[in-house]
Amino acid sequence: MSKSIPRSPDNDYSAEVVAERQQFIEDNTPARLEHSRRYSFDPEVMSGNIENLFGVAQIPVGLAGPLRVNGEHAQGDFYVPMATVEGTMLASYNRGMKVIRESGGVMTTVCGEAMQRAPVFVFKNARDARDFELWLVENTERVRAVAEGTTSVGKLREIEHYIAHNMVFTRFDYSTGDAAGQNMTSKATFAACEWINSEYPALSHYLLSGNFDTEKKTSSVNLLKGRGRRVTAEITIPRQVLIDNLRITPEQMHYGQGISTLSAFLTSSSNNAAHPANGLAALYLATGQDIANIGESNQCTTYNKVTRDGDYHFSITLPALIVATYGGGTALPTQRECLEIMDCYGPGKALKLAEIAAALVMAGELSLGAASRVDKTTRRNEWVDAHERLGRNR
Amino acid sequence: MSKSIPRSPDNDYSAEVVAERQQFIEDNTPARLEHSRRYSFDPEVMSGNIENLFGVAQIPVGLAGPLRVNGEHAQGDFYVPMATVEGTMLASYNRGMKVIRESGGVMTTVCGEAMQRAPVFVFKNARDARDFELWLVENTERVRAVAEGTTSVGKLREIEHYIAHNMVFTRFDYSTGDAAGQNMTSKATFAACEWINSEYPALSHYLLSGNFDTEKKTSSVNLLKGRGRRVTAEITIPRQVLIDNLRITPEQMHYGQGISTLSAFLTSSSNNAAHPANGLAALYLATGQDIANIGESNQCTTYNKVTRDGDYHFSITLPALIVATYGGGTALPTQRECLEIMDCYGPGKALKLAEIAAALVMAGELSLGAASRVDKTTRRNEWVDAHERLGRNR
Amino acid sequence: MSKSIPRSPDNDYSAEVVAERQQFIEDNTPARLEHSRRYSFDPEVMSGNIENLFGVAQIPVGLAGPLRVNGEHAQGDFYVPMATVEGTMLASYNRGMKVIRESGGVMTTVCGEAMQRAPVFVFKNARDARDFELWLVENTERVRAVAEGTTSVGKLREIEHYIAHNMVFTRFDYSTGDAAGQNMTSKATFAACEWINSEYPALSHYLLSGNFDTEKKTSSVNLLKGRGRRVTAEITIPRQVLIDNLRITPEQMHYGQGISTLSAFLTSSSNNAAHPANGLAALYLATGQDIANIGESNQCTTYNKVTRDGDYHFSITLPALIVATYGGGTALPTQRECLEIMDCYGPGKALKLAEIAAALVMAGELSLGAASRVDKTTRRNEWVDAHERLGRNR
Amino acid sequence: MSKSIPRSPDNDYSAEVVAERQQFIEDNTPARLEHSRRYSFDPEVMSGNIENLFGVAQIPVGLAGPLRVNGEHAQGDFYVPMATVEGTMLASYNRGMKVIRESGGVMTTVCGEAMQRAPVFVFKNARDARDFELWLVENTERVRAVAEGTTSVGKLREIEHYIAHNMVFTRFDYSTGDAAGQNMTSKATFAACEWINSEYPALSHYLLSGNFDTEKKTSSVNLLKGRGRRVTAEITIPRQVLIDNLRITPEQMHYGQGISTLSAFLTSSSNNAAHPANGLAALYLATGQDIANIGESNQCTTYNKVTRDGDYHFSITLPALIVATYGGGTALPTQRECLEIMDCYGPGKALKLAEIAAALVMAGELSLGAASRVDKTTRRNEWVDAHERLGRNR
Repeated sequence: MSKSIPRSPDNDYSAEVVAERQQFIEDNTPARLEHSRRYSFDPEVMSGNIENLFGVAQIPVGLAGPLRVNGEHAQGDFYVPMATVEGTMLASYNRGMKVIRESGGVMTTVCGEAMQRAPVFVFKNARDARDFELWLVENTERVRAVAEGTTSVGKLREIEHYIAHNMVFTRFDYSTGDAAGQNMTSKATFAACEWINSEYPALSHYLLSGNFDTEKKTSSVNLLKGRGRRVTAEITIPRQVLIDNLRITPEQMHYGQGISTLSAFLTSSSNNAAHPANGLAALYLATGQDIANIGESNQCTTYNKVTRDGDYHFSITLPALIVATYGGGTALPTQRECLEIMDCYGPGKALKLAEIAAALVMAGELSLGAASRVDKTTRRNEWVDAHERLGRNR
Repeated sequence: MSKSIPRSPDNDYSAEVVAERQQFIEDNTPARLEHSRRYSFDPEVMSGNIENLFGVAQIPVGLAGPLRVNGEHAQGDFYVPMATVEGTMLASYNRGMKVIRESGGVMTTVCGEAMQRAPVFVFKNARDARDFELWLVENTERVRAVAEGTTSVGKLREIEHYIAHNMVFTRFDYSTGDAAGQNMTSKATFAACEWINSEYPALSHYLLSGNFDTEKKTSSVNLLKGRGRRVTAEITIPRQVLIDNLRITPEQMHYGQGISTLSAFLTSSSNNAAHPANGLAALYLATGQDIANIGESNQCTTYNKVTRDGDYHFSITLPALIVATYGGGTALPTQRECLEIMDCYGPGKALKLAEIAAALVMAGELSLGAASRVDKTTRRNEWVDAHERLGRNR
Repeated sequence: MSKSIPRSPDNDYSAEVVAERQQFIEDNTPARLEHSRRYSFDPEVMSGNIENLFGVAQIPVGLAGPLRVNGEHAQGDFYVPMATVEGTMLASYNRGMKVIRESGGVMTTVCGEAMQRAPVFVFKNARDARDFELWLVENTERVRAVAEGTTSVGKLREIEHYIAHNMVFTRFDYSTGDAAGQNMTSKATFAACEWINSEYPALSHYLLSGNFDTEKKTSSVNLLKGRGRRVTAEITIPRQVLIDNLRITPEQMHYGQGISTLSAFLTSSSNNAAHPANGLAALYLATGQDIANIGESNQCTTYNKVTRDGDYHFSITLPALIVATYGGGTALPTQRECLEIMDCYGPGKALKLAEIAAALVMAGELSLGAASRVDKTTRRNEWVDAHERLGRNR
Repeated sequence: MSKSIPRSPDNDYSAEVVAERQQFIEDNTPARLEHSRRYSFDPEVMSGNIENLFGVAQIPVGLAGPLRVNGEHAQGDFYVPMATVEGTMLASYNRGMKVIRESGGVMTTVCGEAMQRAPVFVFKNARDARDFELWLVENTERVRAVAEGTTSVGKLREIEHYIAHNMVFTRFDYSTGDAAGQNMTSKATFAACEWINSEYPALSHYLLSGNFDTEKKTSSVNLLKGRGRRVTAEITIPRQVLIDNLRITPEQMHYGQGISTLSAFLTSSSNNAAHPANGLAALYLATGQDIANIGESNQCTTYNKVTRDGDYHFSITLPALIVATYGGGTALPTQRECLEIMDCYGPGKALKLAEIAAALVMAGELSLGAASRVDKTTRRNEWVDAHERLGRNR
């Protein structure tokens, strides 16, 4: 039986306790913690962000941009910090940003907001479930009062309700200000459920979360109803800008997107875009977002056409973009600095960051969308070439 | 028009050039880079992992474990480094690991391997496409020789082929040793495609990647055919161990899993598990994996039953787990240290890391699977309570 | 160039014109229409149900039952006419009905109603689309007045609205009384759209149906929001009844259902049931339903458990069951007779028929769910045996 | 307790027994069977197609065409019998056929064949399952010999195998000649499974069908790997032909298809076409196919583009088209006549019928694809108008 990790409270972040854990690692594993221990700040700073702290991961961060955003919340040129270990990725996004700049910027719009907790209410039979569904619709205001009583920020926007078998599956949709809000919604929804439990005797029992939220994973319900913010980015790229920068015509891009979408449909893929996860992960990592949210936030649809003037119109919609500028990991030292590079730190900035994120995804889609072609003359492929030149992966 | 980022080559990592970029940021944005610049090593180390480098993100890392793994490649007790900014997450996984230890460990098995590149071959019509599909099957050995000629490590295991309309969608499936292998496969497949292009005149043209791989996103084809490694983790938890640790009976767990699966089906979710993305992201981040792969690697199925003896059997399958112990970000200083904590650094360790990753996901599923219940007596929910106690998110 | 079909108006059903078409067929194809011409009624009866009429298909109809239904609209024992050409199918459903009778009947509940038409509203950009979505919510009552002004029966229950890119995808959900209602909804929605078009100048244009309805096909949106009627059937089968009739224990059924559901998830199947399409198609065919609706109405989820007493609880939910007892093909002679067997002909009977349909599906699920097992002693499989004995298919 | 249906053997088709059942219906239900009893042939003919026979459903059949098919098996002009109760549907398909004729016909290609039975092999753990998967691959020839030993027609083409948890999910893919083949495959696969069971002691047990086939329902695995026949239909429609017949330009059609596909993706629909189920159901019904197969055979993808010359290229792929010209209901009197109209009755004609079916689906897609537009001048919609003029549905 291996030794237990030292029994200091897992949420004790004092230098002493951290050192004890480091010693434990060096005593019990092959690792020497030369670099992991070299955080540049008081470890107490990390209180509330982790348990059993013993150090930091140091992840390279590069600067992309400027990214020109014509949003409602993000307006102007932004330098975007991207943390990654994958060579060529930032260069590829940078190339897309150049196309965006030369096209006058990308228009971004936040079209929806909904952070969920999804209790399931279980009944003796479908008839009781159906009656409860009607009751719930009629009593939404009362439920809202209870839920909102637990939070100064969260607002209950909608209670989605879906009935199947003897259960009513709900999604309590909140606006959560500038925090990601998963925990705020848990607390508010728990209070609402307990109130319902006391008010509605025919309820057999409920589960606070029945996997209908669908947290940390893609789903059709998120695609339809959204989660976090739903953001669209749109651009019209002048024909010559596209040709000059990406060596591809609007017709060729449109053709390639058609095949990508067909592939996405044939494979039942969760998105018909190329790689939103790349840009989002790099931004999330740099700015203290919950990186596991990539599991759901990368969901994306694309739409494109050649305009009558022969230009290229492209848009992406991210239905489940979860970003925060307050709470979570946003106040950690490097994370806050990266947010400040975009002037996105603190309350009131979440929608701005959401718009920048969507514009960033567009940059990546434009660049990679053009990269899988093979040049007819040289028989070279720039994607392969770029990884040969810049990458380290094998 | 905003200023351009200084024109040093984007892959120049010298201290001087990095300093120039830092100065640029401080001159042109509100950010002061006090901490982002405080990496503990020579910046040249980050060469090949990023472009336009200006610093590092420092992400808290904690230690979970020991995690008892009865694998073919990972055998024994492991301490698992998890990098995250989300309080309570590591504590929750730790709780699952305790259950695993008291049950004698989790059995892990790598059941498949396939890293893809997915060219689309386009023809004049479906008849030509069908004929090509037959030709491709007959000429697989010749294609393999060309593809494998570009790499000393990669082996072409299978050419999946799917026909629709006038196109043959393929997935070239490789084993890639201990590297994640996305780039190795690009190069090999490009060579194969060029050879096919020269050999098969009826081919109109091809796209090197037609979104059928389906990289950085979940899909049915990945669920069926796999991507990266397919790994299963299995455990039988003695009834009393479950009750003592998670305050839930096998029957209650089975019931909850049934509802989770129904929810996953009703929402067309990409997985019927609770939150594989959490543990995987924390492990990926600590160990230098491409974090964007969370977009695909979090895909997961669960299966469970109550045994005849009243114990609880649970298993998870990760069909698209992408991990490397060599190349990419694995040699970066803190990343390498974290790999060494598990003795997983370098060639020959990828399957071991894959098994630890699967065991880790199981720990998280067990813990959260039990947390959404409401205690009938106290009317408390431990999930909400834990976030109140340990979390910082709002 | 082949001859054109005689140019009588395609909606002329006079005996003369029908005879002319029959003659044309015999003159121009190898077929002799000995039986197809032998309808037992005046061909004018088929006016409005088909164009270019030349005869009838005669499909065998058998009688299953009695099927005991404890519904709100269907109460008691019903004999169910099933039209099919597949031997063993009716016998299998009959076997399930016996289990149902011995369990005291199946409880059925209609939990939702929504027949859709799904216009897409297209705008210059996402911002305009978002503003329209808000306007639409605020102006629902005015839209409803216009839509309902076109029909004496249809009621607009909800306007579902989903935004992506520069478009607002809507589903106008109607209750349509005892007609299936696809055409009623087209007319009402067209009127509503034209009114919107005149009221909302920023609208670029709209498509009356943008494939979001999703007519004649399964979809996640139908599974979540329903189409036609959403009906659940539930039963608790005493342990001994299950064993005596189906030679399977509750635990074995539960185990088999678990694997069926896992398969459905792994294959991204549109339902986790065994074969709802069989029973529904046979009922639809006998009773004059639009048989193409099988494309959507067969969508189904199952849920099951072993009760504390060791009995077997099973339920199915059909989210998109489209049935009519009025209009369409329901008044055709044999179709009406088959409806009358269940006392389901005419206005006011659609919910009754919906409940019988759901009970019928349950009978089929129970019977086939038990048939794929192999008897451990005899090493025989009753499914294979039944087809050997009764079937004609090869 | 209601009366039981008379206890004559359910597979007794003698006139006497049928009359007894008719009497029973008239005695025990409100129905008078004036027309249902009026089949035009000896009831013994229906032996093997149904149990508990009491009559026939008479369904109107109309004639569409000529449909010009440039297939490998179907070549020339065909008149297509369509059975339906939905007015306007046949007229709409007829309109599409005119477009096809004026474009020189539709090219059809059968690109794949696979009728499945899908046993699940269950093991103690994933490791045993993985070993079995390898064994199965190595022993395919032996398994094939056993399976093919049960049938003179069926050939085992492939054993698809997918591993998850402790199970190996297989699909035994057969070619089945001119029969649909579901039963032939059951028998052959059962024999193979029993042989495996005796040869492979580590096998815990197997299920003959584990819902992975995925019979009578749409699925991703069918879309990828096919079921029945995979057939593609392709056409290039001259610009003016499209405009003259459908009052729509190639660019407008392409635009509409783009939105349809986006909707299909957003709704996770099982097909991105408009209504393949309509044409297929009408053809299946007329020609004695198993109508419940509409549940799976309606799965379809579309692909389209505007050619450089401004013409319109359109194609559809049906991945799971199940049709027979022999066995099942094909020999019933009216059904056989309808097959003979197309010279498709009997052995050797299944691929021909498959090509006609695909061409038929294309006709329907073209017609409806153009019908949802609103004329800008008249503000009329032809879809609504057509149903007003021809339909009976409400």
